[in-house]
Formats: sequence, structure tokens, C-alpha cells
Amino acid sequence: MELMYLNTVWVVLAAAMVLFMEGGFSLLEAGLVRTKNAVNVTMKIFVDLTIGALAFWLIGFGIMFGKDAFGIIGTNLFGSPEKIALSIELPSAAFVLFQMGFAVACISIVSGAVAERMNFKAYILTAALICTVIYPLSGHWIWNSDGWLAKLGMKDFAGSAAIHAVGGFAAFAMAKILGARKGRFNSDGSANVFAPSNIPLASAGAFILWFGWFAFNAGSTLDASNTALASIAINTMLAAASGGTSALFITMKKFGKADPSMTINGVLSGLVAVTAGCAFVSQWSAIIIGAISGVIVIYATLFVDQLKVDDPVGAVAVHGFNGVFGTIAVGLFDTTQGLLTTGDFSLIKVQLLGAAVVVVWGLLGGAFMAAVCEKTVGLRASEREEEEGLDMSYHGIPAYNELERFTDLPTSLYNFEETTGISVAPTRKEKVREVI
Amino acid sequence: MELMYLNTVWVVLAAAMVLFMEGGFSLLEAGLVRTKNAVNVTMKIFVDLTIGALAFWLIGFGIMFGKDAFGIIGTNLFGSPEKIALSIELPSAAFVLFQMGFAVACISIVSGAVAERMNFKAYILTAALICTVIYPLSGHWIWNSDGWLAKLGMKDFAGSAAIHAVGGFAAFAMAKILGARKGRFNSDGSANVFAPSNIPLASAGAFILWFGWFAFNAGSTLDASNTALASIAINTMLAAASGGTSALFITMKKFGKADPSMTINGVLSGLVAVTAGCAFVSQWSAIIIGAISGVIVIYATLFVDQLKVDDPVGAVAVHGFNGVFGTIAVGLFDTTQGLLTTGDFSLIKVQLLGAAVVVVWGLLGGAFMAAVCEKTVGLRASEREEEEGLDMSYHGIPAYNELERFTDLPTSLYNFEETTGISVAPTRKEKVREVI
Amino acid sequence: MELMYLNTVWVVLAAAMVLFMEGGFSLLEAGLVRTKNAVNVTMKIFVDLTIGALAFWLIGFGIMFGKDAFGIIGTNLFGSPEKIALSIELPSAAFVLFQMGFAVACISIVSGAVAERMNFKAYILTAALICTVIYPLSGHWIWNSDGWLAKLGMKDFAGSAAIHAVGGFAAFAMAKILGARKGRFNSDGSANVFAPSNIPLASAGAFILWFGWFAFNAGSTLDASNTALASIAINTMLAAASGGTSALFITMKKFGKADPSMTINGVLSGLVAVTAGCAFVSQWSAIIIGAISGVIVIYATLFVDQLKVDDPVGAVAVHGFNGVFGTIAVGLFDTTQGLLTTGDFSLIKVQLLGAAVVVVWGLLGGAFMAAVCEKTVGLRASEREEEEGLDMSYHGIPAYNELERFTDLPTSLYNFEETTGISVAPTRKEKVREVI
Repeated sequence: MELMYLNTVWVVLAAAMVLFMEGGFSLLEAGLVRTKNAVNVTMKIFVDLTIGALAFWLIGFGIMFGKDAFGIIGTNLFGSPEKIALSIELPSAAFVLFQMGFAVACISIVSGAVAERMNFKAYILTAALICTVIYPLSGHWIWNSDGWLAKLGMKDFAGSAAIHAVGGFAAFAMAKILGARKGRFNSDGSANVFAPSNIPLASAGAFILWFGWFAFNAGSTLDASNTALASIAINTMLAAASGGTSALFITMKKFGKADPSMTINGVLSGLVAVTAGCAFVSQWSAIIIGAISGVIVIYATLFVDQLKVDDPVGAVAVHGFNGVFGTIAVGLFDTTQGLLTTGDFSLIKVQLLGAAVVVVWGLLGGAFMAAVCEKTVGLRASEREEEEGLDMSYHGIPAYNELERFTDLPTSLYNFEETTGISVAPTRKEKVREVI
Repeated sequence: MELMYLNTVWVVLAAAMVLFMEGGFSLLEAGLVRTKNAVNVTMKIFVDLTIGALAFWLIGFGIMFGKDAFGIIGTNLFGSPEKIALSIELPSAAFVLFQMGFAVACISIVSGAVAERMNFKAYILTAALICTVIYPLSGHWIWNSDGWLAKLGMKDFAGSAAIHAVGGFAAFAMAKILGARKGRFNSDGSANVFAPSNIPLASAGAFILWFGWFAFNAGSTLDASNTALASIAINTMLAAASGGTSALFITMKKFGKADPSMTINGVLSGLVAVTAGCAFVSQWSAIIIGAISGVIVIYATLFVDQLKVDDPVGAVAVHGFNGVFGTIAVGLFDTTQGLLTTGDFSLIKVQLLGAAVVVVWGLLGGAFMAAVCEKTVGLRASEREEEEGLDMSYHGIPAYNELERFTDLPTSLYNFEETTGISVAPTRKEKVREVI
Repeated sequence: MELMYLNTVWVVLAAAMVLFMEGGFSLLEAGLVRTKNAVNVTMKIFVDLTIGALAFWLIGFGIMFGKDAFGIIGTNLFGSPEKIALSIELPSAAFVLFQMGFAVACISIVSGAVAERMNFKAYILTAALICTVIYPLSGHWIWNSDGWLAKLGMKDFAGSAAIHAVGGFAAFAMAKILGARKGRFNSDGSANVFAPSNIPLASAGAFILWFGWFAFNAGSTLDASNTALASIAINTMLAAASGGTSALFITMKKFGKADPSMTINGVLSGLVAVTAGCAFVSQWSAIIIGAISGVIVIYATLFVDQLKVDDPVGAVAVHGFNGVFGTIAVGLFDTTQGLLTTGDFSLIKVQLLGAAVVVVWGLLGGAFMAAVCEKTVGLRASEREEEEGLDMSYHGIPAYNELERFTDLPTSLYNFEETTGISVAPTRKEKVREVI
């Protein structure tokens, strides 16, 4: 049937874009952490995409989408997820691939919050646990048609709750239990900021995430004949734009500087917050949701700092707090059942319940995983590993190796001028001389 | 209707790719400017995608596509662009989203030419003005079926005139009025080149732009049943390839070096130049158009320098000059009405008129925006802000923060050898010692 | 006909993604080589996409897909590839564009192995030769329905043999004849590792390749009604995931460190190895194929080193060895004809023959191209060019120019603290003082 063919192309392309978002997470994190950990955050994303993806394919998918027991857990499809019988015009392989993209996104949310001081083996274990147990269980409750939250009428179109809030609060618990990076919080209660090592790189990651998010949200239709598809896409854009605008202006007013990290996080917050309701709200509602999320992320970031929880990339503020807000926002702005749009209370009650459930579940899940790691491979990097940088400690190689540049540059500048006849501006002639 | 479903998927994906091109602009500019302004150029792209996008959605779309008055301006759809009644099989939300991508591209063209010395608030104002007034007005004339240039038969399939030439000449006017960066032009008339800070990053940006351009051009069909779709795509590729080949060989011959910035700009010029005619010309014509554009960009770049206008990325040469050339090229190579292909003069007359209109409009628009900025927030960065770098001045943070690397590296090199047993080549052992 | 419209959209998008993989190759290589050659590796990718693409469009396509003579070579369509009459529901222009993406990928495979010491003009000549002669000839044998290997029943769905093995062994021959980079091998037989200059950049390249590969493999259906499309996509993902898992764990066990270059190459090896059979094998087979490829790449890399052949990025191990393995794997795991799945010997015999043919052809092709270069423009960079770095020697500009950073940073750090009131962690205050 021809709709089947169109849906196959649509969902396969969307899945590829969602998986590409992992590259976005990788660059975002590598740019926000210090250089001595840039390889490590990248390797953690590779862990998500390799071990995490396989773990979800093998086990997690069955837990999430398998034959339901008690509205809590799936009980089959392990090792054979393509055997799922879908009620939509879509090959099961496409559905499984798309769901794999969502699962690895959940792990990557956690990876940012635990960056720069987590034991690498512990991270591998965490990735496996998130993909086999933590994410699929709450995912079952929300997205399996027999899941108990789904049966109560909870609406989470593409995962503000199921992916972002779960990930964000698991991240919070793990970051808290891990403890802060050395030098982050002073004994007098003040906090130090570790400057991002590479802001253009982090921004590149943000743009990749933004690109993939169109597929993350609109691809969740799983069906090109879903007449909400285009609205979902434009709502995604509008919320991102207003989230970024909101954060940008607040930082200009509050700090006198248009802060790049906050602007990036404002955009991402808009995307997270609209993820639950993109199929259910009007364009103006999407703009409002985004604008509010940009405010939330700034204050949530400061709040998390006040709790002395060290979150190197703001994952808790972006995904945790705005995942919750996005879930509740459906209850406010849904065009047919929203409190503010129709006066109907029934949906927002379920949304609040669902939000509370995923917050508690995320915290419990994060604490559980931290405990398992502590008892097996150890949770935190040693003091020396953290000081030296996880790149050298776990990966044996620094992220950036540019010494040849300094060796070569002085002579090269003169060659450049000789060869091209173009005179180089004075500041370029200054040399950094290497000292042995 | 099934074509509606396919078109929705097609245009939503194309819109996502076009919006992703903003990430391309961002990396290209960050790589071409000096490091002390790399955050600023990135933040300007975020402004395009947030404030610019919302401004277009709120106002600009209505100006461009609203109910026509006098063939000059649209008069409705403000704050509600999805109310547009389309005559094609496409949901309005998809059309609006795709048009948003085009609008922000126009602002980004200007951002490169004004880089490194423009006041940040002035840029925000500029982005808003381009998206609400400058771009939508000329866009109305060219792409609204009642627009006066459209009624005269002007052909600009995906925007060589409507986006690139308008942006490129607004860029010229603003760069001229802004004045050159300090140290750029010497009193004896010679020019200095500020070396690009990160060429691999700039190239990554170019590859992203190249990727998105397939959607920029072919997505402008807005309709998968348009039998020109595949030809548009291959024409886009061929022009990019010949533009790059052309520029590459010219720099090798002229300067003795295969210059990366010029090669990148040759590719982009081919893309810009074929944008007007991609749906109307043969593949061999596309190759010729690209090849000529690669020649134009080199000489236009030198020409702009001779006029003492400082354009840090060559935006005027790439988008302005080649936008004009691309517009005229339709009149030469159109398969049914081209002067060279059929001997018909009627089309090229309209194309020349259209090109002249967008050049004048771009210049006037740029001058207007510069004046508005000067009178309100100020146009140029202060001397100190420019010297210090806009990153610190407007954003409070440098782009690259890698000092930990130097602190850690010496000990780490020895650990690396001890741990892996792999000996490191001699140049790596030389250290940059930190001096306090 | 509506399937034609869907196929046009599908193949055009897939072609754009495959061409975007060139950006992936570029970043991967720029990150793996030393900084003094980062511009050069990038420029070589531009050569692939400009000169290589045009050469294939002009000549290579006809050799590959033109009217067959003797099962060896095509004899028409030169300068007019769109004249091809396809038997599938797809406009010829889309088919040509997609094939262009495959051709340039083949050249890029070679570019990594010859990096850091190849004459730039020689590389241009090589790109042209690969695209007009080497790749299209073997491509004709495998993919032209009249090609002699195709007639024997060889199966290579998306090019493990036709692209990866051919490229990988041409790469081997050229790397061997070129000779190793200075300082790479010591007289006592040991090898030195040149540390990658930018691992986050290399990883970004890997993620782009991974993204594009969904189109590389699934797009080879050229037809959305091919019911294997979704399976192809998920097989691609599973093999990449298991290849990366495999390599990651082996490096942790063998070297005590989770090595990023090997992990990246493990992922790429899984992708290469599943490329031949993605349409013909089960998901579990794809996982196994990927896992084995991750083992192969590590030992093949060490083997190539033992042969004293210097391959800066591991192209021979990833594309050559795993291209061969992937070709043979079809003979083992094909669901209808595989040796291990059905006991049938007929397919694996053809696959072994095909693998042997492309290995010999690649080696001969590489040797041929090296000889042509040597006799015309010279093959290797001069000693001085290599020492100085090809960036300055061939392109007149270094990849990274960040001196302004050091000039500005010390004062800026204090401004940062004054302005924001946020205290900066102690390591940031240490300065690298410039010495003249």
C-alpha cells in the first residue's frame, strides 16, 4: 500500500535525523566542558549509540512495547523487536529504529550532568541500565497503549515527560550523588563557573539538535497521513525561537551580556517544553510555551546551583525542569482539553500526575543506577583521574594536539607574505615562542 | 489526499534542512573571523533564528504573502500566517515554516559582511527589520503572484534575487556605512588580510550549507509532483561543483596556492547563481553558470576591497554579485525563453530589471537600517569593544578556553607513553610552558 | 505516477545526505591528522566534490552505466548521463545525482590514506582518475546489469566491494608507493603514533558519516516500494552499534584505555561491512557482522603498520579489509543463499571471487594512478613541503590562527569577573604569556 511506502521513507529519515542528534549532544557537551574532558564526553555519546542502542534493541524495546502486564511492563519481543505487530501502516523495523533514537537521547541527557568526574565503566553500566530498565519502564506507562498513565489519558506526544523529564531527573540524582567537580563550589557558599572550552563547537551541537528535533517531534506521528504533521513542525520551530529570544533578553537585562550558553539552553528548553504538546497546541500557544521555558531554564539553572548540585551543561534545567513544564503545558494549552483554552480540568490533572510520576521515577532511577555503579565498578573518577582529565585517564589521549602549529607558524607567516604578496596585519606577526 | 501527505513530508524535511543551513552560516563565519569575535558571529545567527524568525512569522510573512495592495505589499495574515489559503496541495503550516527558513537566510547573508565591528543591539534591530520589512517587500514583488515583478514575468525559482542579491547588497551598504575593521586598510591604499581563525570549522559550515541547499532549491517546488524536482537537485550540485572547480583553479594559477576561502566561496557562488534558474536550465547550463560564478566571486572580492569596503567573509561577492548574475543567467539559459538558448529577448529584459531593482532595494534597505540603528542604539561597536573583541564586550566570554590543556599536557604526554607503550614522535614532546 | 513522485523525493534527499558525508570525511580527517595539514585534507575533499563530481558526471557515469560492451565497460552517456533509460520509477537526474555521491565517496576513502605527504596536483589527478576510470569500471562489473560480476550473481547492495574495498585497496597501493610520513617508522622496526590534532572534530565527522550512511544504504533501494527499505536502515544501525561496541571493548581490554580513534573506526567498520548485505541479512546477522568488523579493524590496522604502510586514518583497515569482509559476509549470512543460513555454497563462491577481483583491481588501480602522477606532476610532496606542512605549502594559510586570543585573554579574564560578578576557577587565571 502506498501510504506504507511513504511512511517507511518518512520514519527512516526521521530516525536518521534523531540519531544524528547524538552528534549534536556530543559537540554541545565537548564545547561546554573543559578541554581535558572533551574526548570523554564524546566517548560517552559513542557508548550511548553503541552499547545503549543494542541494549535497547535487545531488552528495552520489549519492556517498553511488549505485551503488557499490569499496565507496568512489557513481557515479550526480547531479542526480536521487529516481531511487534503495529496497528499503523509502518514496517516494524522502521518503528524499532525510530524508538532506538529516542532511547539513546534519554541516556545522553544524563551524560551532560555527570560530565567531567564520572568513572567511565560506571557510565557504560548506566547507559545499559537506562536503556534496558529506567527509560523503557516509564516509557511503557506513557506510550504503550496498555500503560497505566496512557490509560488515564496522559498526553506526551514526543517525550517531554517520557524522555526529557525522566532523563533530567535521573541526571539530577546522579549529579547529586556523584558530587561536584573539584573547585566548583566554595566553602563560603559561592559557586565558580568553569568557562566552556569551545563555544562555536557547542553551538554547532545546538544547531544539529535543533535540526534533528523536527524529526524528533514530527516523526513521532509515525504516519504521514497525520494531519497535525506540519503544525507539529512549525510549533517546534516557534517554541525554539521564543525560548531562545526569552533567554537572550533575560541575560542581556540581568547580566548585561548576551550569554551564549544561556541562549543555547533557552532554545533547547523551548524544544523540550513543546515536545509534549506540539501536536495538540496552537502556534501562539507554542510561542508562549517557548517563552516561558526560556525563563524557567535560567532560574532553574541558578536553583540547581543553589542546591550545590553540579550540572556542567544545565541538563537538569533544560530537560528536567522544562520536561516537567512541557508536560503540564499540554494540560494548559491543549486545543480540545486545555485548562486555559477550554476550561477543562480533566487533562491537566493527568498531566500533573504524569509529571510527578516521571520526576520521582527519574530520581529513583538515578539513585538506583548510582548505587549499582558504586557497588560494582565505582561511581566517581578518582581525584587524580579528575585532576589529570578523563581524556588522559580513560582514553589515553588529549582532545587537542596542536603543538606542531607552534613549531611551524613563525617561519610560515613570512612564507605566506612572500608567496602571496598580501601583507598580514600586525597582530599576526606576534609569535608564541615555544619554551622547552 | 495522498499527494498532500507526501508534500507535507517533503516540505517539512526541506524546511528543517534550510533552517539547518543557519548552523552552516554560523560555523563558516566563526571560522573566517578572528577568534575574539567567534562567539559574536554565532550569537548573531541565534538572533536570526529566534528574533528574526518570530519577526517574520508575526509580520514579514503577511507583508510578503498577504492579500496584495498595488503589487507592492501584503496587507493581512499578521500574527496568523497559517491562515493563508494555498492553491497547492500543502498544509499552510509547512509553507510558513519553509518561508521562515528563507527569511532567516537573508539576514544571515548580511551578518557576515558586518562582522567584527557591529554593535550587537544594532544587529538585533537589523535582523528584525530585514525580516519584517526589507526582505518581505522585495519578496512580495517577486514571489507573490500579484507582485509587480512577478506579473512582469520575472523568474527567480529559489531566490538568487529575492534572497541573495537583496541580502548581498544590503550587506554592502551596511558594511560601507559601518566602516572597515581597524587595521584592514592602510593609508597607502593597500589592504591587509586577517587570516581566518579556523579553516576546518569554516569548511564544516560550507558543507552544511551545501547539504541544505538541495532543500533550499528543490524544496522550492513545494510539490513533489513537480517534474523538475530532480533536475533542480542535480543542477544545484553541478553548479556548486563547477563554481568550486573554477575558483580553485583560478587561485592556483593567480596566487600559486589553492586557497581554501576562495574555493569555499566558489562553491557557494555556484549555489547562489544557480538558485534562480535551477528549475529552468539544462545541466550543461548549470555547469556553465557555476563556472562563471566562480570567476565572478574572485574578481568581485577584489573589487569590493578596492572600494575600501570591508567584507570579512565575502558575502557581497558571493551573494550580491552572484545573486545578480544568477538572476540574469535565467534570462540567458532558460530552456524556453533564454536568450542564448532560444534567442528570445523578453525574459532577459525582465531579469535585468529585476536584478537592478533588488540591487537598489538592497542598498536602500541597508542604508535605511544603518540609519535607524545609528539613531537608536548606535551602529558600530566602540573602539575598545572592537579591540577587545566582541565576544568579551557583548557576551562576556571568549570563544575558546583551553588553558587547562597547557596545564595538564606535559605530564600527560609521559603518562601516555608509559600507559600505552607507544612512543610519541619528537615534535609532540616539545612543550609550551606556561609563564605567569 | 505517484510512486515516481515519492521516489524522486526519497532519492534526492538520500543523495543530499550521501554528499553530506563528504563533510563527514573532511572533519574526520582534519581531526585525525596533524594541524599543519588540516587545511590540505579539507581541500582534498573539496576536490572530490568539485573536480571528482564533474569528472564522474562527464565520463565515469557512462563507463559505469552506459551501454555495455563485453560485460566490462559502458560505451555511451558521456556528457549526458541523464539520457539513461531507467527501468525503475525514478527520474534519471535523481539516479545520476545519487550515483555521484557514491563516486566521490570512493575518492575520499583514498584521501585519508595518502594524507600529509601527497602532492596536491597529484591528488587532483587521482580524484579525476578514480572517478572516470577506476571506480566506474569495477562499478560496471558489479552494478551494471550486464556487468560480468553481476551476471555471475554477485550481491553488493550498496558498495562494500564496489566502493569501500576498491577505495581501500587503491588507498593501500598509493600509501605504500608514496611511502610513510617522516618520523612514522623507526629504523628498529617500531612505529610512532602521531596524535590526532582534534578528536572532537574527528568525532563530529564520524557522526555525519553515520547519519549519511542511512541514506547510503537505504537510498540504494532507489525505490520506496522496496519492502526491504526499513530492514536495511535498522541493519545499518545495528552493525554500526556492534562494530563500535566491539572495538571499544577490545581497546579497553588490550590497551587499558577506551581509544577514541579505534572506537570511531569500529563504528565505521560496522557500517562498511554491512553495506553489501544490508538488504539481504537478518538483524541478528547484522549485529554479528558488525561485531566481527570491529575486531577486524583493530588487527588490520596493526597489520598494515607491520607492513610499514603508513595510513594516517586507518582507511585501509576500515574500508579495504572490512569492505572485503562485508562482501564475503553476504555469502555467509544472506537469508536465501547464505552458507551459514541455508548451507548454500553458490553465493559465497561468487562473493569470494568478487572480493578478490576488487582487491586486485584496487591495488592495480592505485599503482596505476601513482605511476601516472609520478610521471606527470610528481606524486609525493617535497621534504620541505612535508616538514612545513601542506597547509602552508599548497594553500598558503594555516588551519588555525588564534594568536589574537592570547593577546586578548589576560585582560579579558578580569573584565569577565568584574562584569558578571562570577569568580573564575583558579586554573583559568594562569596565562600563557607571549614572547617575542
